[in-house]
Amino acid sequence: MSSTFLGEFIGTAVLIYLGNGVVANVLLKFSKGENSGWIVITAGWAFAVTIGIFVSTKFGSPAAHLNPAVTVAEAVKSGDWSNAASFILAQLAGAFLGATLVWLQYLPHWSATSDSGLKLACFSTSPAIKHSFGNFISEFLATALLIIGLGSLPSVSNGLGPYIVGVLVWAIGLSLGGTTGYAINPARDLGPRLAHTFLPIAGKGPSDWGYAWVPFVAPIAGSIVGALILKLL
Amino acid sequence: MSSTFLGEFIGTAVLIYLGNGVVANVLLKFSKGENSGWIVITAGWAFAVTIGIFVSTKFGSPAAHLNPAVTVAEAVKSGDWSNAASFILAQLAGAFLGATLVWLQYLPHWSATSDSGLKLACFSTSPAIKHSFGNFISEFLATALLIIGLGSLPSVSNGLGPYIVGVLVWAIGLSLGGTTGYAINPARDLGPRLAHTFLPIAGKGPSDWGYAWVPFVAPIAGSIVGALILKLL
Amino acid sequence: MSSTFLGEFIGTAVLIYLGNGVVANVLLKFSKGENSGWIVITAGWAFAVTIGIFVSTKFGSPAAHLNPAVTVAEAVKSGDWSNAASFILAQLAGAFLGATLVWLQYLPHWSATSDSGLKLACFSTSPAIKHSFGNFISEFLATALLIIGLGSLPSVSNGLGPYIVGVLVWAIGLSLGGTTGYAINPARDLGPRLAHTFLPIAGKGPSDWGYAWVPFVAPIAGSIVGALILKLL
Amino acid sequence: MSSTFLGEFIGTAVLIYLGNGVVANVLLKFSKGENSGWIVITAGWAFAVTIGIFVSTKFGSPAAHLNPAVTVAEAVKSGDWSNAASFILAQLAGAFLGATLVWLQYLPHWSATSDSGLKLACFSTSPAIKHSFGNFISEFLATALLIIGLGSLPSVSNGLGPYIVGVLVWAIGLSLGGTTGYAINPARDLGPRLAHTFLPIAGKGPSDWGYAWVPFVAPIAGSIVGALILKLL
Repeated sequence: MSSTFLGEFIGTAVLIYLGNGVVANVLLKFSKGENSGWIVITAGWAFAVTIGIFVSTKFGSPAAHLNPAVTVAEAVKSGDWSNAASFILAQLAGAFLGATLVWLQYLPHWSATSDSGLKLACFSTSPAIKHSFGNFISEFLATALLIIGLGSLPSVSNGLGPYIVGVLVWAIGLSLGGTTGYAINPARDLGPRLAHTFLPIAGKGPSDWGYAWVPFVAPIAGSIVGALILKLL
Repeated sequence: MSSTFLGEFIGTAVLIYLGNGVVANVLLKFSKGENSGWIVITAGWAFAVTIGIFVSTKFGSPAAHLNPAVTVAEAVKSGDWSNAASFILAQLAGAFLGATLVWLQYLPHWSATSDSGLKLACFSTSPAIKHSFGNFISEFLATALLIIGLGSLPSVSNGLGPYIVGVLVWAIGLSLGGTTGYAINPARDLGPRLAHTFLPIAGKGPSDWGYAWVPFVAPIAGSIVGALILKLL
Repeated sequence: MSSTFLGEFIGTAVLIYLGNGVVANVLLKFSKGENSGWIVITAGWAFAVTIGIFVSTKFGSPAAHLNPAVTVAEAVKSGDWSNAASFILAQLAGAFLGATLVWLQYLPHWSATSDSGLKLACFSTSPAIKHSFGNFISEFLATALLIIGLGSLPSVSNGLGPYIVGVLVWAIGLSLGGTTGYAINPARDLGPRLAHTFLPIAGKGPSDWGYAWVPFVAPIAGSIVGALILKLL
Repeated sequence: MSSTFLGEFIGTAVLIYLGNGVVANVLLKFSKGENSGWIVITAGWAFAVTIGIFVSTKFGSPAAHLNPAVTVAEAVKSGDWSNAASFILAQLAGAFLGATLVWLQYLPHWSATSDSGLKLACFSTSPAIKHSFGNFISEFLATALLIIGLGSLPSVSNGLGPYIVGVLVWAIGLSLGGTTGYAINPARDLGPRLAHTFLPIAGKGPSDWGYAWVPFVAPIAGSIVGALILKLL
């Protein structure tokens, strides 16, 4: 197993363990952070990114993508697609592991929560208003901004770079996340949705696979456009 | 198109896309951040500034004003007004684009929201209490502080400078924004107000042009006074 | 007028303009941040300190005390009391100016707010439960921690030092401010209390001078003990 | 008394004074931060860690563990257990002192608060849902992540390192703290629980010693596994 594969795998697991963990904290019944609101959700995801990057770098992936949309954007910019498939595989596997850790972390709370929709929301994203075009454009634009923002930072994984990347994701969550819950990362949605399908979560409902294409396709499309804007301007 | 023009244009578009985006997230019906409060609004605007500066710098404007009041203050301090008009034009155009992106980002939420005043508030500012002198002095003082604060920072666009500029704007929002919603930037108010007037927003009401002079004139007046204080003391 | 006097004066004015401003935003009727809670209050004061230090340094006081308790602690540590009186005078005058700016900033909101106790709270501190010993010990301990914390930071006014000092004050507010509203600074309480007494604030009540000794004496006592702990250990 | 012992003692006292202080602020009756929510709790603990590390370093412990789980992890990684016992003793004694300071800080609020369970929660942790296996696994996983995260940061106590360690603990609190209140530190739970048992707190109830083994044993187990993962991969 290559070191970068390991770094992407463990880094993405940490990202999802913390990121989906904060959703569980806010949504699950009796949790100490129940109903603590959007500032908690978005701060949790921001710091999940920051810590995920530090850990990914430590375990061997200095690029610390943790996101297929970032991997695709880097390939578009460099023209080198040789590592893209293995990175994305590592990210998906890491996201599945991270979601499994969230299930273990909040073990007694799944049966305490009756609403199966809230339980699914601790794994994958769902739109506030179902609207295919609106949902797609929302994920598309937010991911394009993520890629342009990342390309504008002086550093992603050195020094305080991971903190500023967290601030970028915090900004996106605060400002653009109200519509679809800002997947902006196909692995963040697909890995946990697979985990929701396969794990024996107490009282779970369906995994809403009908929506799964939006948080997969739209971020990839947005990342390609964001990368092209960076390349051309 | 000059590179600094492009930088001011794209940077201000990002500023308004994120900044007005957080207002939409908090005010629009069914948004996941609905009613999440002042900490979300002010953090969102702070990070909008931080990310806007990073992007503006990347696309060619190392000064990253993103605000006609800052451009005027720099001209007052340096005595060089040669670039002021083109900077301000780029900022206004960028603000219009950013507001358009907010409209697209929250597309299904405009028809879901019945209060047309809330919809206008996702574009331009309005006072908590209509009071011409009080509203003027509030924008005037807050912008003077912005200019004095910016002039006191060791760096605006290098290193972690953009983060600290974000903290300055966060401070102004938290402490001084309760009265008029802290435009402190004529482009931030005028560009989105124009967008509100021209875009086909579902169920929109009037654009309240009667108030538009306050968030344009008061920030310019405050910036001149702030710049003179920096220059004289 | 010496440059350090000017720096302490303007820096403390900014500190109080922003710090008392956030209290006004949360407490005054119809303010956009009305009832936005403790996270807003404490973040506002934290960033008020950060920006106050940057401005104070810019205008000539690289030490940027902004607080008689800090000035006393530095004198205890160094044995040099020669500048203490002029620093403290500048801080008190700056605090008076800052409170006056808050009154102007929120001008239409004073008559809109009926509770005169809330209006006083936008100027000076008051205890959650009146209890002379408990209130004294609370301000005493919190200020001792402020001084020990400041003495433990690698930098106060260089680089990102002002941000970390803000975090220290944020920590004190979040954790220790629930009892007396964390004056931890005699100028922060006395200057605005004088302003409350003399300004023509619409519908104001008494200035509660009976409590004024606590937020003056206890922080000074705490700062001396904190400085001695730093000196002896 | 060795300097590192003093540093661990005072640093942990500051950690608990601020950390348990924020819990008291949110839970105790009439406190100004009453019911201010999970963002306040987690920000308070994050900055408690940051300030605790700065103070610990200043008073002689550059490693600034402040946590027996960290001390054990460092011993597992280095194989050197010679200082572990004295570090842990200093941490427990510091935690007892810190909890005593919280009792003094909020002195009039203990008799004002009728619920004895809330008073205990200002000292030691308790689970949202009693479930031995679930509570254990929750503390175990969160502490393993703490150790892996700490081992991935470029710096713990130099430069802005203490701020980023605070962000790591903020992340854990936001995302993983909803179940057991994230002790992730045996001294953080045991020291204050002893203080609760021995201090004359007005109207206190039992100290729930039946749960005390979980926040002691699970963090130690998690820290060993985290350290082994860092060592082996």
